[in-house]
Amino acid sequence: MTDTLNQVLAQADASLPRSLERLFALLRIPSISAQPRHASDCRTAAEWLREDLASLGFASRVAETPGHPMVVGHQENAQGPHVLFYGHYDVQPTDPLALWHSDPFDPRLVTEADGRKVIVARGASDDKGQLMTFIEACRAWKSVTGALPLNVSVLIEGEEESGGINLLPFLKANAAELHADVALICDTNMPNRTTPAITTGLRGLVGEEVVIECATHDLHSGMYGNAARNPIEVLCKILATIRDENGRVTLPGFYDGIVDAPDAVRAQWRGLYPDDAETLGPVGLSLAAGETGYSAIEQIWMRPTFEINGISGGYEDDGFKTVLPARAMAKISFRLVPGQDPLAIRDAFRTRVKEMLPPDAKIHFAPHGASTGFAVPADGPYLAPALGALTQEWGVPAVAIGSGGSIPVVAEIKEALGIDSLLVGFAQSDDRIHSPNEQYGVESFHRGIRSWVRVLAALAQG
Amino acid sequence: MTDTLNQVLAQADASLPRSLERLFALLRIPSISAQPRHASDCRTAAEWLREDLASLGFASRVAETPGHPMVVGHQENAQGPHVLFYGHYDVQPTDPLALWHSDPFDPRLVTEADGRKVIVARGASDDKGQLMTFIEACRAWKSVTGALPLNVSVLIEGEEESGGINLLPFLKANAAELHADVALICDTNMPNRTTPAITTGLRGLVGEEVVIECATHDLHSGMYGNAARNPIEVLCKILATIRDENGRVTLPGFYDGIVDAPDAVRAQWRGLYPDDAETLGPVGLSLAAGETGYSAIEQIWMRPTFEINGISGGYEDDGFKTVLPARAMAKISFRLVPGQDPLAIRDAFRTRVKEMLPPDAKIHFAPHGASTGFAVPADGPYLAPALGALTQEWGVPAVAIGSGGSIPVVAEIKEALGIDSLLVGFAQSDDRIHSPNEQYGVESFHRGIRSWVRVLAALAQG
Repeated sequence: MTDTLNQVLAQADASLPRSLERLFALLRIPSISAQPRHASDCRTAAEWLREDLASLGFASRVAETPGHPMVVGHQENAQGPHVLFYGHYDVQPTDPLALWHSDPFDPRLVTEADGRKVIVARGASDDKGQLMTFIEACRAWKSVTGALPLNVSVLIEGEEESGGINLLPFLKANAAELHADVALICDTNMPNRTTPAITTGLRGLVGEEVVIECATHDLHSGMYGNAARNPIEVLCKILATIRDENGRVTLPGFYDGIVDAPDAVRAQWRGLYPDDAETLGPVGLSLAAGETGYSAIEQIWMRPTFEINGISGGYEDDGFKTVLPARAMAKISFRLVPGQDPLAIRDAFRTRVKEMLPPDAKIHFAPHGASTGFAVPADGPYLAPALGALTQEWGVPAVAIGSGGSIPVVAEIKEALGIDSLLVGFAQSDDRIHSPNEQYGVESFHRGIRSWVRVLAALAQG
Repeated sequence: MTDTLNQVLAQADASLPRSLERLFALLRIPSISAQPRHASDCRTAAEWLREDLASLGFASRVAETPGHPMVVGHQENAQGPHVLFYGHYDVQPTDPLALWHSDPFDPRLVTEADGRKVIVARGASDDKGQLMTFIEACRAWKSVTGALPLNVSVLIEGEEESGGINLLPFLKANAAELHADVALICDTNMPNRTTPAITTGLRGLVGEEVVIECATHDLHSGMYGNAARNPIEVLCKILATIRDENGRVTLPGFYDGIVDAPDAVRAQWRGLYPDDAETLGPVGLSLAAGETGYSAIEQIWMRPTFEINGISGGYEDDGFKTVLPARAMAKISFRLVPGQDPLAIRDAFRTRVKEMLPPDAKIHFAPHGASTGFAVPADGPYLAPALGALTQEWGVPAVAIGSGGSIPVVAEIKEALGIDSLLVGFAQSDDRIHSPNEQYGVESFHRGIRSWVRVLAALAQG
């Protein structure tokens, strides 16, 4: 196998110029899913991918949904496990267009001040560049061996950037066809330029809006101040109790079921992010504000949190108005880790608010989503081989990392197909995804392809 | 004196129709001080009043200011103390005009469903109707006795409704001319339709804006939630500490120097407002929210308070955004009673915020005014005679009441001239001042005139 693997890697190296050409062709299609005028471009991107997969021997089709279409492909192999690769061909809008240094859909190679070569275009990193690392790895395998080393299905959607609601129903409706042993996703970052990583933890989210109403209308604070209940003060007093002086959430049962990452993993994280001041420096902060006893990266990657995402009430404009408002509103959220029950936590929050609600105050709640946290089991059959493959490619021990955010597809694949996902990504934090001058390092692309070549081999061998 | 007084009262009764005609003439002048296109109307109102005062034997003039002019008049008497009457001829804008049932500057008499006759026009109550009660009382005295029973100066300004800044400099520049023993002001309410009152306490105000900043820019709550300090939470935690569970302000020294109203006065208030649920019912509330142990009206009339007048931060629009904001803002105020030092209280608030400010958070303060509370001394030489005169007129014991709000002229007269003010008013809470269909009861106008006839007599006798 080693000889074959080396040949496939050499093929990937040799064909890099043509791999870039194909990526550039895909980047030229302005497949902005959020903008109806680009609907036909989304379909063009789907067709382009279907043809490209077909040229690699995939049985591929463009599958309709109520929104933008999916691309589905399958290629069987006599042996090995079955992987399902997920990516998305749609991209973010390009505004503000004036801040781009070149046409976002005219991709170009740019050499940075530090000598790095980057691909600049909308979607270069998120997700066209990343998804093509996988397809180009398949191409290298086919080119050298005439086959893939294991069974591969591919699902590429077109609504990831526009809050699409069609993926979960599609997964459920096609569960038999799409079933595999493990999902592979290429839509995440490396923690730095040299350390490969698999994101094995994602936080869930419970969002909630709470409105407190007291008087029937805004009052003059001179006429009623003191005697009439102030809903802003009520709201502040309630929200002030949600976390204690050690940054811990005080809702009963909030931390039930949580298991922190193993010491060995946390030690790796400390190696990557030894200093909170350095971790938080880029946003103007220096100290981790959450639970004491956890570093900033631990607070983000493996601990749940409470955030106030917005608050409003009374007079917010310039100057001053002696109003005693009738109403105050806050939007809050909890980021959840595996083990926590989003609905139980929503209930606990609502119970706290109701318990603290003074007489004469009324309350309205509005839910804004509820999803569980997610973790790839450290002892599963695919994580260790994949980490090993990445370590071999990059020459640096690959790390299992967390992510503070949510990637809904991971939960949806788990729900519809019952399988875990390995999030293997090569993006960098300065790729400017969703922003003007989005870029993807040529090294990310090249070594991403090589990484997938190795990961496929490793998973095939088990 | 009693015979004379009865003759003057009879004259006031007999001339009520002509008194109303004169008030209507003044109400027809659209003297809206806030709207530049009505500047000449303001001058017309000032000239009208100057002429009317002159017709009563006042040495009167229209005095220029950088804004709308003042009307000043003097009439000496061989004996008795010297009073300075203050009123304002300017009125509020009339919008929304569509909600008026008749032209706001075409005054008319309307009979209410309960049989009450009311004068409907902009300024009917605030303040043309009220100020004319005093002038008509003077007219009745002149008509019967050929003189006023004491020395009277009159100052009528034209910028009360538009945040005028010219009154205090004018008072200071003309302090010698305007000096008197006591000021009389007719711009306040009766507590109900039958009980006459003098407002002897007014609250001061300290306004403050506080901005908390943490990160240099808004963050993704998934990427940073927990580790990056949330300025809304910081703000809520600070504001939640300002009042304790008993509604008392917790700032050190906040209550220093405060003297509650005497028991006898508080007993009168309880007679007027026996039930908090009734006091607060019109605004949809039922329980006093301030310091325990004080009724709603005591909380408003004689106790200081803390209010959050506005708050904002993060995402406030429809839906949800997982933002961790960089900035949060609140506008707060304290209503003050006599004895409290506004600047010391501002300092105490700022100290609290600074003490609670966590690492990495920055703070900005902006002051929005600072004024002291005001009280007419209960043992002064003018309050008791004035209350007695009102009691005689209305047949119900007159009450010394408080007011939750501020009336800046009272503090300005005290500052510039060194004298206290007696706030004697006949407006009702349903006069709809500042709103469409402003009205003033014919009874308020008629018995207001009779009340001033008696008050002038009582003050003349000392």
